[in-house]
Amino acid sequence: MTRERLIYLPLGGAGEVGMNTYVYGYGPKNRERYIVVDLGVTFPDMDGTPGVDLIMADITWLEKRRDRIDGIFITHAHEDHVGGLGHLWSRLRAPVYCRDFTARIAAKKMVEAGQPVEQIHTIGAMPDTLELGPFKVQFVPVSHSLPEASGLLIETPAGRILHTGDFKLDMAPGVGEPFDEEMFRQIGEAGVKALVCDSTNVFSLHPGRSESTLPESITDLVREAEGMVVATTFASNVARLRTLAKAARDAGRSVCLLGRAMQNMVRTATEAKLLHDFPPTVSVEEARDMPRGSLMLLVTGSQGERRAASAQLSRGSYLGLSLKEGDLFLFSSMTIPGNERGVLRIVNALSEMGVDVVDNTMGTYHVSGHANRPDLERMHELTRPAMLVPMHGEHRHLRQHARLGAASGMATAIAPNGTMLDLTGDTPEVVDFIDTGRLYLDGSAIYGAMDGVVRERMKMALNGHVMVTLIIDEDGLPMGEAWADCLGLARHGRSQRPLSEVIEDALVEELERTGRKVMGNDDKLGDVLKRRVRSVCVDEIGKKPEVTVVVSRLAEE
Amino acid sequence: MTRERLIYLPLGGAGEVGMNTYVYGYGPKNRERYIVVDLGVTFPDMDGTPGVDLIMADITWLEKRRDRIDGIFITHAHEDHVGGLGHLWSRLRAPVYCRDFTARIAAKKMVEAGQPVEQIHTIGAMPDTLELGPFKVQFVPVSHSLPEASGLLIETPAGRILHTGDFKLDMAPGVGEPFDEEMFRQIGEAGVKALVCDSTNVFSLHPGRSESTLPESITDLVREAEGMVVATTFASNVARLRTLAKAARDAGRSVCLLGRAMQNMVRTATEAKLLHDFPPTVSVEEARDMPRGSLMLLVTGSQGERRAASAQLSRGSYLGLSLKEGDLFLFSSMTIPGNERGVLRIVNALSEMGVDVVDNTMGTYHVSGHANRPDLERMHELTRPAMLVPMHGEHRHLRQHARLGAASGMATAIAPNGTMLDLTGDTPEVVDFIDTGRLYLDGSAIYGAMDGVVRERMKMALNGHVMVTLIIDEDGLPMGEAWADCLGLARHGRSQRPLSEVIEDALVEELERTGRKVMGNDDKLGDVLKRRVRSVCVDEIGKKPEVTVVVSRLAEE
Repeated sequence: MTRERLIYLPLGGAGEVGMNTYVYGYGPKNRERYIVVDLGVTFPDMDGTPGVDLIMADITWLEKRRDRIDGIFITHAHEDHVGGLGHLWSRLRAPVYCRDFTARIAAKKMVEAGQPVEQIHTIGAMPDTLELGPFKVQFVPVSHSLPEASGLLIETPAGRILHTGDFKLDMAPGVGEPFDEEMFRQIGEAGVKALVCDSTNVFSLHPGRSESTLPESITDLVREAEGMVVATTFASNVARLRTLAKAARDAGRSVCLLGRAMQNMVRTATEAKLLHDFPPTVSVEEARDMPRGSLMLLVTGSQGERRAASAQLSRGSYLGLSLKEGDLFLFSSMTIPGNERGVLRIVNALSEMGVDVVDNTMGTYHVSGHANRPDLERMHELTRPAMLVPMHGEHRHLRQHARLGAASGMATAIAPNGTMLDLTGDTPEVVDFIDTGRLYLDGSAIYGAMDGVVRERMKMALNGHVMVTLIIDEDGLPMGEAWADCLGLARHGRSQRPLSEVIEDALVEELERTGRKVMGNDDKLGDVLKRRVRSVCVDEIGKKPEVTVVVSRLAEE
Repeated sequence: MTRERLIYLPLGGAGEVGMNTYVYGYGPKNRERYIVVDLGVTFPDMDGTPGVDLIMADITWLEKRRDRIDGIFITHAHEDHVGGLGHLWSRLRAPVYCRDFTARIAAKKMVEAGQPVEQIHTIGAMPDTLELGPFKVQFVPVSHSLPEASGLLIETPAGRILHTGDFKLDMAPGVGEPFDEEMFRQIGEAGVKALVCDSTNVFSLHPGRSESTLPESITDLVREAEGMVVATTFASNVARLRTLAKAARDAGRSVCLLGRAMQNMVRTATEAKLLHDFPPTVSVEEARDMPRGSLMLLVTGSQGERRAASAQLSRGSYLGLSLKEGDLFLFSSMTIPGNERGVLRIVNALSEMGVDVVDNTMGTYHVSGHANRPDLERMHELTRPAMLVPMHGEHRHLRQHARLGAASGMATAIAPNGTMLDLTGDTPEVVDFIDTGRLYLDGSAIYGAMDGVVRERMKMALNGHVMVTLIIDEDGLPMGEAWADCLGLARHGRSQRPLSEVIEDALVEELERTGRKVMGNDDKLGDVLKRRVRSVCVDEIGKKPEVTVVVSRLAEE
């Protein structure tokens, strides 16, 4: 009989911040039963994924083993944990387990994607326990920045795993359960084989600050403002929305929520009775008629997203509301690396309008939802695991977190996406590397990152595109001249003549000296014409474009 | 007789950090004589300028008035001040004036672009004075981060302007002249009408630190390292290259310079006898044979540029050198907003190799070349100008700097690119707005940002591209079927059939019901087919691609 083993396999979220997708397995090798933790998304950028809508982990490996999946657990309702559920569920078809608030958001994802919402099952926090095959799973409340964020306590015959999910050590997070040190101590005392732990803020050296440190400074800021006040944060940071809305009320202002994602989060949390003290809000219509000094807008787009409310306000107006000199705009957020340019575009546009912009430079208007280095160390101490497996971070985060663990005597491993760890023994052991990757949602289609679609787009964007059309007659000879259409290329080059004309003239010449053998072969002819177009373009504009040659042959009668 | 006036017109650099290009004019309205200060570049990104090589200010306005340009002054040899000279000079054809080191770099730019190098004239620092029409111009040594960085003291019949160029207050900058407080005090005492002043670091609230604070910490870091050490910084930060090379020597290591731009800067500064104490370097060939522990590489690519030495080392090797576990990589630099993703790509790749990465997070391995807020205030105090005109900054920087000046009682104006200020009176007065913009160098072609070339590229990158080819026979009827070639689109959509097949089938159907009138008109036929392709793509893949339709008509015999 084969030895049973306990495995851990990240498919997303380990080696990046985003698209969290983790697999745990227990059983004989290659016959393990699995549970999946989170099906998140990450967001595209013009740099590497132009035109893509969402990015998800490639779950092909799981899909092939879906008959062995006992359940999908969603730790909390942030997009990087739940955003892929609707798009990927049909490939896995396993029941989905979440706490109430998460279940409500997860249900929306399923409905939007046309998937069966009854697959979502609501589970209470510990001590409620779900037994699935070899696993006993409990939701462990953690403090984060929205209702019912949770870790998972996963009991297996080989020992207990504590999967932290996203967490911070906040005794007064405003929304969601406060961090319960005693609970984690007890979990530790009962024995934790492996702590699979959030690594996002391992480079932040000071202890994390509490959400409760913000209301005073924000209220002061809003109270001193004379014109309109606008504040932006992540739409899904329900705790911050509450902090901001309460600050507005305390400063004597009404709150108007702008942006669908934000309204949706607040409504859902309210329906779930998890946001009892959110001040009443006014509609956009009401807001338009209110004195600017008695209004605060809470808007989406803190990361500079071009189509969100913040960007639209910076470009002029949004739903009939607009900013002007003397107004105040607060970024109650941090900028995710890579989004700086978009955020600064907004800041400068607001500066042109004379709007004062305040951000978290001084550390008074935002706190992170993730545990900083001293907080991670506290978590290690409380739970005293035999092994530490860093997750939720770029490689540099995982590596630093592993070092931290090793320094306190824990067995650790750096396991980026696709690294299968065997956690059965005393130390995590790398037993396999799974081909992983990314799936792109693009419009309604989903395809793999390596399928070449995005590579073609990048090439057209970098090099421009020349389309050559040529008709070959029944006798195998060019009929008329070849046409060249250019997109994304300088209109004129060195010769000062239109580029497409120069190309067409060169093609005439090229075709005159092309022999019948090449002329009769689409591939060869295409290659010859492509090469000629490129060489003309190098001469004219110093650039090699992408070239598509379409040869149409008139059928011989 | 028309009143003579003194004008200031930024064409680049005011409203952005980069492509500095400023114009001063003196004379009767619309008959002023001009001098141009700097012809810089800024760098493209995939976000907004895919495939572009360099970005420069649109100097059309100047070009039309080039017979009135008395000279082009280059303040210092950084790309954002001199990088456009070679590409733009032929449009202006005025003599170019610089100090020796700058002239050497400027000459290279002219040679590379095939322009007459004898147009570069070397001028000494003040008290050397150049009289050009109504202007008397002196180069004013400032501390920055390379040799002979200068401001300009521009005397006109309407008063004196101090154009700071890039500067910081560093009494020991290592390379280039120390900041000379007494000199600026004297300039102030002789009377400054307008201070046109660097604004880059107006949001940095602490006084700037000196380059001389770095050697100790860098030497300590290098001394403790056991494996190979690699350090990166801006290739043109000659002061830092010297600091790093000396730290290497002090830690007992030989230095190898990697990257053409970096070698070029060091060689030029050495030839100009402005870098007498740069330690001897070893060649790449020698470096390959040296023990790792006795070598330090100085490499380009601190901003994450994909083709530079840093990125190549992070991907495996560069010129036969490669990194491994236990090596140390130092970013002696700051990351320009927007470059974070590229830099982190390198950091994570190095993390995967086990290389330790150190950056300036703790503020010990980099200092800025620009004056911080207290330093700007010091400059205001020393020179006591009647007016302050903030330049060299995004709009937010200009606005904050203007506020700072206004708070100390100076007349100020926010003048982004294209804003013509009249500085003749007691306050800067906006007298005109010039249509400005950007020129793109793309391969060997130069075109305007608004010419649509880049817009076409972005559209193809975001939406993909379908090319439709159709032949219409002598009778005005489709000959065979239309072809569809797709680039940058999902291969299959909802129907699971190849997208191009689905499109071609739809086109057959569309053509069958197209009347002769539409069939006979290329534009109308093109529109009909485009619309059909888009609607098919929306059905299949939820996306509207760019469509190019090429209709070939067989000539009627």
